[in-house]
Amino acid sequence: MEQKTENVAVIGAGSWGTALAMVLADNGHSVRIWGHNPALIEEINAQHTNRKYLPEIDLPELIQGYTDLIKTLADVKTIIIAVPTKAIREVLQKIAAFQSEPLVIVHVSKGIEPDTLLRISEMIEEELPGELLEDVVVLSGPSHAEEVSLRHPTTVTVSAKNMEAAEKIQDLFINQNFRVYTNPDLIGVEIGGALKNIIALGAGISDGLGYGDNAKAALITRGLAEIARLGVKMGASPLTFSGLTGIGDLIVTCTSVHSRNWRAGNMLGKGQKLEEVLASMGMVVEGVRTTKAAYQLAKKYDVRMPITDALYDVLFNGMNPKDAVDGLMSRRKTHEMEDLEDILGAD
Amino acid sequence: MEQKTENVAVIGAGSWGTALAMVLADNGHSVRIWGHNPALIEEINAQHTNRKYLPEIDLPELIQGYTDLIKTLADVKTIIIAVPTKAIREVLQKIAAFQSEPLVIVHVSKGIEPDTLLRISEMIEEELPGELLEDVVVLSGPSHAEEVSLRHPTTVTVSAKNMEAAEKIQDLFINQNFRVYTNPDLIGVEIGGALKNIIALGAGISDGLGYGDNAKAALITRGLAEIARLGVKMGASPLTFSGLTGIGDLIVTCTSVHSRNWRAGNMLGKGQKLEEVLASMGMVVEGVRTTKAAYQLAKKYDVRMPITDALYDVLFNGMNPKDAVDGLMSRRKTHEMEDLEDILGAD
Repeated sequence: MEQKTENVAVIGAGSWGTALAMVLADNGHSVRIWGHNPALIEEINAQHTNRKYLPEIDLPELIQGYTDLIKTLADVKTIIIAVPTKAIREVLQKIAAFQSEPLVIVHVSKGIEPDTLLRISEMIEEELPGELLEDVVVLSGPSHAEEVSLRHPTTVTVSAKNMEAAEKIQDLFINQNFRVYTNPDLIGVEIGGALKNIIALGAGISDGLGYGDNAKAALITRGLAEIARLGVKMGASPLTFSGLTGIGDLIVTCTSVHSRNWRAGNMLGKGQKLEEVLASMGMVVEGVRTTKAAYQLAKKYDVRMPITDALYDVLFNGMNPKDAVDGLMSRRKTHEMEDLEDILGAD
Repeated sequence: MEQKTENVAVIGAGSWGTALAMVLADNGHSVRIWGHNPALIEEINAQHTNRKYLPEIDLPELIQGYTDLIKTLADVKTIIIAVPTKAIREVLQKIAAFQSEPLVIVHVSKGIEPDTLLRISEMIEEELPGELLEDVVVLSGPSHAEEVSLRHPTTVTVSAKNMEAAEKIQDLFINQNFRVYTNPDLIGVEIGGALKNIIALGAGISDGLGYGDNAKAALITRGLAEIARLGVKMGASPLTFSGLTGIGDLIVTCTSVHSRNWRAGNMLGKGQKLEEVLASMGMVVEGVRTTKAAYQLAKKYDVRMPITDALYDVLFNGMNPKDAVDGLMSRRKTHEMEDLEDILGAD
């Protein structure tokens, strides 16, 4: 390693935060992982395990658990925020209350805030005053935490307004198993990561209805087209949606048993109600909130998003999932490029 | 149905030919399916089944089996060619020997001819003299035969030099379960369908090595980039690779247990030799021949295709599959857009 090691804080001791802490520890960094559950933090420090989120994995001893946010951030310049989208503002408000030195914030969550319609880097900029915020970097891509914790080959993308900051984060994480690419399109990376969860819900519903791979592939293909259509209107590059944080992440999320958005959709397709599904998951299903945000964004930017509209009706208006999917599949006879040309041209 | 029904011939009684014959019969057409195995044709006519290729499916009685090519084509104007790529020339030569009326040929195979490097529509144009060939149409997309035979929702694309011919074939096949789109990019549709089989082999190898969804998603994403890079050099539209015959077909082929290219790759990843794999499959694995053709095309058009090169070395130069995949995953630290910008810009 030519690179200097440093203290890094990971805020959030769920599966993704813990897996990323392992990558950092493998690279020789001293990692402090913060969680609000004292029993879990005690387990991390005493047993070097996190059985709830990563069963069967032994954690490197360079990972130290904390429940005190002030102690976690002492002598730390770079923090990884790995909490669900809806907890990000609260965590940052707590940090802003005591922090005096500027921080580099790396966020690894995937969502859009409903109602404000802000991307996560924008939420972070709202919560931390400029003198505390040196840079915001996003890390995203096709990456199940379980596989990263097994040190299976994984590729992700980092992006930021300031690409020097993104490159520093690339250097912090990159190793033989965990390949990190840079992409200057911050908007596209954040939008692709967030909106793929909607399509994963749809793919899960299709599978839950007993439809096959043909139907799912059609949904994923058309889903990517509508994500790209919205993203380009919001200022993203269309190329990003053909990359790791677009197609790549969509494939993993829509075809893997690890994906909780797919699992939630699958239960909906089998006839369970949304409340039952959310109650039985026990983990945050980002795609549900993101569907609402994307539905609002489609209206704001006047973009056609038929899959998002159908999902919104299933989740929030009591539409029957089978009617929704059948409606999407039996559209009028058409020219395939109609959809795709919209990505690059006017809508 | 506003549309007139007609006699249609399907050449090839494998799983895909039989499933497409079912779609045509569901639309009221009189379908003649030709196969060289008398026992299979007798089973189709007497039992209305094709147990070898579509177990558990009952065929519509509008499907009649033939072993005599001349009888199959009597009073037929439209023929669907559903034989493996390497059998296409032989079948067409037999037809050219007796046929006197012009035909519309619909091909549904996915391949590139090694050495000549011709697409399938070009091979057809070489074999049938102009007076016998009214139009060539390709039908392609994410479509496992098994699921089409179960009448699960499926979407495909048709393309041709003459789009009126493509639209007639769209009308012939389209129904509530089988949605047919048109795309004027004949080159892109043929290249995408053929080359995705290479990436499916690679995805199978990655899975066979025990790597996870993260690695597979990275391979698929980068695989699509290199297919698109070659396709654009050959005259295709980059948009086609984001559509059903690009991403869509790639997803189905790389993530489904039905895919024989994936299965062949999976066996290679587990350490079996190519000869053993091909012997045990008992069906044609188009991706093996296509890897050779794509390797030659990459040289001819001077396009970087690292995944194709690695697969070629595994299949034909005895390279260890693990070394090939590890080599692909551990490339130098890089800018993600390097690859993707090549799709649209100069290589």
